[in-house]
Amino acid sequence: MKIIIDAMGGDHAPEVVIEGAVAAVKEYGVDIILTGDETRIKGLLARKHYTGDKITIHPTTEIIGMSEPAAVSVRKKRHSSISVGLNLLKENGQGAFFSAGNTGAVVCAATLTLGLLPGVERPGIAIVCPTLKEVSLMVDVGANIDAKPLHILQYAAMADAYSRSVLNKVKPTIGLLNIGEEATKGTDFVKETYNLLSQSNINFIGNIEGKDLFAGKCDIILCDGFVGNIALKVSEGVAALIYGLIKTEFTATFMSMVAAFLLRSNLKRIRKAMDYSEYGGAPLLGVNGIVIIGHGRSSSKAIKNAIRVAKEEVERNVNAGMLDTLSKLKVPSQQA
Amino acid sequence: MKIIIDAMGGDHAPEVVIEGAVAAVKEYGVDIILTGDETRIKGLLARKHYTGDKITIHPTTEIIGMSEPAAVSVRKKRHSSISVGLNLLKENGQGAFFSAGNTGAVVCAATLTLGLLPGVERPGIAIVCPTLKEVSLMVDVGANIDAKPLHILQYAAMADAYSRSVLNKVKPTIGLLNIGEEATKGTDFVKETYNLLSQSNINFIGNIEGKDLFAGKCDIILCDGFVGNIALKVSEGVAALIYGLIKTEFTATFMSMVAAFLLRSNLKRIRKAMDYSEYGGAPLLGVNGIVIIGHGRSSSKAIKNAIRVAKEEVERNVNAGMLDTLSKLKVPSQQA
Repeated sequence: MKIIIDAMGGDHAPEVVIEGAVAAVKEYGVDIILTGDETRIKGLLARKHYTGDKITIHPTTEIIGMSEPAAVSVRKKRHSSISVGLNLLKENGQGAFFSAGNTGAVVCAATLTLGLLPGVERPGIAIVCPTLKEVSLMVDVGANIDAKPLHILQYAAMADAYSRSVLNKVKPTIGLLNIGEEATKGTDFVKETYNLLSQSNINFIGNIEGKDLFAGKCDIILCDGFVGNIALKVSEGVAALIYGLIKTEFTATFMSMVAAFLLRSNLKRIRKAMDYSEYGGAPLLGVNGIVIIGHGRSSSKAIKNAIRVAKEEVERNVNAGMLDTLSKLKVPSQQA
Repeated sequence: MKIIIDAMGGDHAPEVVIEGAVAAVKEYGVDIILTGDETRIKGLLARKHYTGDKITIHPTTEIIGMSEPAAVSVRKKRHSSISVGLNLLKENGQGAFFSAGNTGAVVCAATLTLGLLPGVERPGIAIVCPTLKEVSLMVDVGANIDAKPLHILQYAAMADAYSRSVLNKVKPTIGLLNIGEEATKGTDFVKETYNLLSQSNINFIGNIEGKDLFAGKCDIILCDGFVGNIALKVSEGVAALIYGLIKTEFTATFMSMVAAFLLRSNLKRIRKAMDYSEYGGAPLLGVNGIVIIGHGRSSSKAIKNAIRVAKEEVERNVNAGMLDTLSKLKVPSQQA
């Protein structure tokens, strides 16, 4: 199994990507192909004293910047580390691809290069969220901005398979992110989606409010990509605000610094529980191949964890599970 | 000036409402009219040993429950504590109305009873958010689920006046909540809104991402009611998750309990900074009268603070300021 990694993707690429790849090789024994600038990658591997044969380089000549428009850049830069990596994945017919680069470009290139699984109209980005109970899976957090209710139903089927195979859930419960619990709440889009989900053969438990997103009320939380992206990023913002307040308060006096020192391992565990990098990258559900997207700000630890998740997804043959749930999915007639 | 309060609104009504009202009378010297069940209110005032003449009761016979459908219940229950209270406000021609009851019903009844300010098509709920810098004002957080770009522009004008008059901002900056900073990002609705805002004569600084909602990047954050409600409630959820983790960790061992005890005043200040009840209720912008909406879970402190905000809004004549900014608002021609 080979994991192909976009060495040039992310705010701190290629440095942290190489660092994470080297760590993953040591820890998980995976084989890695890095796509990107050969000279820079070689230099960084040497600096990390990596001399093994588990990491190979596939040189590419173009880079898609973090804020370049997705579709245009994918069309123009056919030799980018993203597009070349995805082509390699397709040729290999197995393994996985990871990038912490331009999310829109990865979604676009993956869709064009790999195609979609039968029964899927749009890919969706899933993310593993910490909650007060177990982790939950939220989808879509930004791939599909103009979603239709049917897309959300397809996400439900894929998220179900993913949760069972990768997150070891037995019969995952599925909720719809909305502004109230009643079926009559929300926009027309959300109400239509609610109806579709409740008429299908999925384990739908109803609407979930924003305040319950991290309460562990259900295993899978569905939403369109706009709302999901706002929810995800607002969560980051709130966490940053609280950590900012904690830092200010805990360094305010000598006494508070001493107390905070005594609590240092507890504080570390709190941050760890909330740290996206612990959960690795975000799987792109619906493309015909295993693709994981990393946060632009991914640290080397996040990259390493994303590679672990990629390995697990390959080993557990997660896409076969999704094909199975998709084929059994009951699509209510008016939407078929 | 009389502040009319829905004594029956809120998860813990009428108990906490009466408690908050009594505290507000003592602290701010306001005159209060309570609408609701006379017998229960009298009993609770007696229990609080309130014997003054600053609080009067206006008996009502119906209650709109927290989860009743808004429009239907307002139409059917004309003698509810909400509708009667709003009618009193209209008759008085000054003062303010506060309710921690069914938000949808308050929005609906306020619109029907008071009408809208000239130049406003839909009311919006604003909320004061803590940030790493000063507080920000976010609007709409749930009144207008199917917003049009023009509504958002009208919110901008009203939020500008509100921020200057109540939050003491000099030239508040205005941002649009979106999934990226570029003008090309987001749904068609958000892109249209972006164009409209940038062509008008407001202090628009562009898109604001979810992660920057609490970073204090701008004074006013605009969004439609669905997205705003999700963002607001997700924030509550994240805060609850982090506090839950803190509680678990800080009570884990004897040492951590001692350290947490030493930090108790610091922890209190952190919670206080994040506590919605510190900022009082959420003003309903756009109706022809001063209406403040409280969180269903409002504590007596939140009620008291909301009454303080109501008093300030009346004293500062906030609606006159909004009428002024609305009359000067440049509405780009294609939307007029």
